[in-house]
Amino acid sequence: MLDESAKGVFTIAVTPFLPDGSLDLDSVDRVTDFYLEQGATGLTILGMMGEAGKLSAGESLAVIRRVTARVTIPVVVGVSAAGLAPMQALAVEAMQAGAAGVMVAPPHTLRSDGQIVSYYHSVVEALGEIPWVLQDFPLATGVQIPTSVIAQIVADCPTCVMLKHEDWPGLDKISALRAASEAGARRISILCGNGGLFLPEEMARGADGAMTGFAYPEMMAQVIAAIEGGGADRAQDIFDAYLPMARYEGQPGLGLAIRKYTLAKRGAIAHPTLRKPGAALNAAGMAEVDRLAARQAVRLAALG
Amino acid sequence: MLDESAKGVFTIAVTPFLPDGSLDLDSVDRVTDFYLEQGATGLTILGMMGEAGKLSAGESLAVIRRVTARVTIPVVVGVSAAGLAPMQALAVEAMQAGAAGVMVAPPHTLRSDGQIVSYYHSVVEALGEIPWVLQDFPLATGVQIPTSVIAQIVADCPTCVMLKHEDWPGLDKISALRAASEAGARRISILCGNGGLFLPEEMARGADGAMTGFAYPEMMAQVIAAIEGGGADRAQDIFDAYLPMARYEGQPGLGLAIRKYTLAKRGAIAHPTLRKPGAALNAAGMAEVDRLAARQAVRLAALG
Amino acid sequence: MLDESAKGVFTIAVTPFLPDGSLDLDSVDRVTDFYLEQGATGLTILGMMGEAGKLSAGESLAVIRRVTARVTIPVVVGVSAAGLAPMQALAVEAMQAGAAGVMVAPPHTLRSDGQIVSYYHSVVEALGEIPWVLQDFPLATGVQIPTSVIAQIVADCPTCVMLKHEDWPGLDKISALRAASEAGARRISILCGNGGLFLPEEMARGADGAMTGFAYPEMMAQVIAAIEGGGADRAQDIFDAYLPMARYEGQPGLGLAIRKYTLAKRGAIAHPTLRKPGAALNAAGMAEVDRLAARQAVRLAALG
Amino acid sequence: MLDESAKGVFTIAVTPFLPDGSLDLDSVDRVTDFYLEQGATGLTILGMMGEAGKLSAGESLAVIRRVTARVTIPVVVGVSAAGLAPMQALAVEAMQAGAAGVMVAPPHTLRSDGQIVSYYHSVVEALGEIPWVLQDFPLATGVQIPTSVIAQIVADCPTCVMLKHEDWPGLDKISALRAASEAGARRISILCGNGGLFLPEEMARGADGAMTGFAYPEMMAQVIAAIEGGGADRAQDIFDAYLPMARYEGQPGLGLAIRKYTLAKRGAIAHPTLRKPGAALNAAGMAEVDRLAARQAVRLAALG
Repeated sequence: MLDESAKGVFTIAVTPFLPDGSLDLDSVDRVTDFYLEQGATGLTILGMMGEAGKLSAGESLAVIRRVTARVTIPVVVGVSAAGLAPMQALAVEAMQAGAAGVMVAPPHTLRSDGQIVSYYHSVVEALGEIPWVLQDFPLATGVQIPTSVIAQIVADCPTCVMLKHEDWPGLDKISALRAASEAGARRISILCGNGGLFLPEEMARGADGAMTGFAYPEMMAQVIAAIEGGGADRAQDIFDAYLPMARYEGQPGLGLAIRKYTLAKRGAIAHPTLRKPGAALNAAGMAEVDRLAARQAVRLAALG
Repeated sequence: MLDESAKGVFTIAVTPFLPDGSLDLDSVDRVTDFYLEQGATGLTILGMMGEAGKLSAGESLAVIRRVTARVTIPVVVGVSAAGLAPMQALAVEAMQAGAAGVMVAPPHTLRSDGQIVSYYHSVVEALGEIPWVLQDFPLATGVQIPTSVIAQIVADCPTCVMLKHEDWPGLDKISALRAASEAGARRISILCGNGGLFLPEEMARGADGAMTGFAYPEMMAQVIAAIEGGGADRAQDIFDAYLPMARYEGQPGLGLAIRKYTLAKRGAIAHPTLRKPGAALNAAGMAEVDRLAARQAVRLAALG
Repeated sequence: MLDESAKGVFTIAVTPFLPDGSLDLDSVDRVTDFYLEQGATGLTILGMMGEAGKLSAGESLAVIRRVTARVTIPVVVGVSAAGLAPMQALAVEAMQAGAAGVMVAPPHTLRSDGQIVSYYHSVVEALGEIPWVLQDFPLATGVQIPTSVIAQIVADCPTCVMLKHEDWPGLDKISALRAASEAGARRISILCGNGGLFLPEEMARGADGAMTGFAYPEMMAQVIAAIEGGGADRAQDIFDAYLPMARYEGQPGLGLAIRKYTLAKRGAIAHPTLRKPGAALNAAGMAEVDRLAARQAVRLAALG
Repeated sequence: MLDESAKGVFTIAVTPFLPDGSLDLDSVDRVTDFYLEQGATGLTILGMMGEAGKLSAGESLAVIRRVTARVTIPVVVGVSAAGLAPMQALAVEAMQAGAAGVMVAPPHTLRSDGQIVSYYHSVVEALGEIPWVLQDFPLATGVQIPTSVIAQIVADCPTCVMLKHEDWPGLDKISALRAASEAGARRISILCGNGGLFLPEEMARGADGAMTGFAYPEMMAQVIAAIEGGGADRAQDIFDAYLPMARYEGQPGLGLAIRKYTLAKRGAIAHPTLRKPGAALNAAGMAEVDRLAARQAVRLAALG
């Protein structure tokens, strides 16, 4: 079961499809193995970048079961939904299938502090004992969650064990939450998203790791390992080498096509297909990725 | 099967719950009968005001089957979803259960004309031969669909047989679409929402009826009957008598609680319960509704 | 100077233009007189429905001076702006010209409770001793201000003397603020907008009057007078007679064209012109307004 | 006068303030000189990052005159406003003061293609012969402008001479507009924003340069010079060296505080002050910037 001690790299997993748009379960296996090999300490499946909303209920369950059957590291399942009943149904199925916890983003209609807190109270009522991750991703959800609201949710909801931190800018939020836990508040795990684009600063501010799906997940693992080994400059050197590509992959909307293109090139999935609506990378984009990848390889080699 | 000739009153059905939040299928029967008695020529279930997003997939199917088993008038099922695969799954199940068609609102993320048209092209690809209703409700969806875009969808998609018209203001949109069909474009059915608050003007502009869930659905039936009988002033007299209540029920967010309170008072459902998140009407609100209902009864009696 | 005792009808004034779009200062005089004759106890100029954003700084000042020179009732000036410096500049000029206070809506970018409170703290810092009205109009601003935030602003900012209440639904907000002032909080004036569409209920909940620009401002004056005279049913009868028109004028975006059309028909302004971008009422709309006006006259005559 | 041949680096200028928030005109001179020294071929003042909305009309004019008096390169003035009349007034004053053109972003309320086109038709009517820049910055404005709409504006409005390209992702938009001009459409200048974060790809897609305010504007000048000299890899090496900092400065909201902090450290402005509402960089942020600056200096030295 997921708890507040979670750390390292929880890779956000893509959901692979065949060219006709049907689920590619063989590639689910392959990409799961790939993530493990590249240093994942956990996996997050059926998140936004897992095209969760495009799956039928049956397909979601098939993916969950396939992944949980293959790994022993904790698997977090995205269960964000328009209503509490479908969220609850999926969460219960996920836990029965062996998930370690679930992740819940706020519906885009929430505005005031009180509405957000009240929503997560209802989530807890629906989830019961299931440990869950609070996803704070204003660029995608349109919901801005102040630090004070996160602190209140942490205080009110013991089953909230992790923050998926993806506010932008969000560094001061990490610092404030860590100051709060040093002052006596419960300390939850903070894993950071944003494609890894602020990982060195996030770790320095007190994050416990990354939860993101950059197509070179070894970057996150190596940066975190270097930081834990005391090598902040070494960590930044590694980070800087991947940064041109991470920046390119960070384009909203297009980013998943870039990610899947790279994962397919690396052999981690059979096809770069996105489900509709969702465009493929065009030739100009592929050439840009290829150029960045070639430069990245040279720079990494020089780093040793 | 739903087609372009649909007219009259397609009542937007509430989904009744027991006080503990579980589905109240007996009240589904009762409110279905009530709608028929009050003049419904069709039913729309699992729309926004049917709390569709709050139901699990199994519950949605249970409601569909219960309603289609009870009536012979056409039943439209709301199938709006975050992705095409779950939409398709629900639509196929609905049609197998005897629905006449489905209704699809645009996802809140759509912005440009091209994005909207492209989305509905994908919808048609997913739905195949299933006839569907385009829901145009900017206040709720955040998506503004220009008349020219509706016209293009009508031209591109033969299975789009109806517009649920709920733009506000939207009267000129009806006029423009009717002018287009007089100029040779395919004429689809236009049924109007907005709680019936503009029904006389909408009918005069060329609408074919109402698709809304005002808790006195006899208003829509009587107004339409009077208009069809040539009595525009009589129609407006009836409308005016209900207007103070229709205005009160039209409060966004709170409106469904008002509607369920009235339906419960009228015996059409056993409990006014909304599923969470969704508040009940408080005492002050109930008193306001009661006062308006009493005045409405007097005024209707005076009308004869 | 505006203070917490303000009550009655603060009419939201239109800004009249000549057909070429230039300011029509003669009609400013005429419509000001008209508002006085129809029972205004105050005026609000340069609000959203005063097309404030479309005026140059010089034109805004010309309107302010013209109105304040003509009346002795309090004049509130809308000073909402993208920044504090231009707001301050306009507010100071308005007060020097004889305004009684200013009105400030929140910028559309505000989200969390803290952001809203903080913004109004900055407003107070910019305005100094100038009394001001908090405009709470989520449908137009996109900013939802919880009751608790209004209460905090009232507590923190002694120069906030009035709430322009225009939330929808917003009746419970009035009740909660009045309960707070009965429990010891400072009691500010609450004047209600929303085109007057909820005036009877708003007054019953504790509002002090209306601040709205419905083209028949005598409705608000008469309804409030009847309520103050103890005739709640008489008040509602008057309200109901105007309701079909008030509902029609309440169409967002189009409402101002409807309002100016009626005011021009009533002789209160010379031309119904809106400044660009802003459409005129078309022929179908004019016919609908004329029909509603004719029915309204009959019904008012019957009321006596 | 600005025309379609504009290219190079149009630096987005900050507006410097004294610690008490008043305009710092001496620093206006100093930062203007700094931008020139770092390779600016044009300047853009009173844009979003110039805190334009926070200035009174008189202050805006003072800044315009100060800058235009000091330089001979073209100065573009941001004139986006809530209405056409204030926009026109500022644009006329700016041109009289010696500006080369103006820049106009769409109001946040625009949604459909037709609304956007119609808005810019009105802009042209208001601006007359004044050449103007179309600012396409969805992340800040909330308005998504499809490529086809830009093409229509270019076709309809001969005075639109430049696109400030700041869509994200937006690379394919550049390619599509260049393909259109190769197919016969008028070719306008495209200068790119986004803090320079995609400059190498943007230039390769056909952009004419950058219009952004990264606090190391020499990066843009050097990258463009290298590309024009045929050294795409050299250009990318320079870009990569600045990228960790450009990424850090790219944090929305916080970015301007970072930029002013750096400009003050570099001696280009006297104080890093932002006008309220607008926060200063805190100590943790300053330390992060200092660390990145130190690493950047080392890396640039190694590049030679």
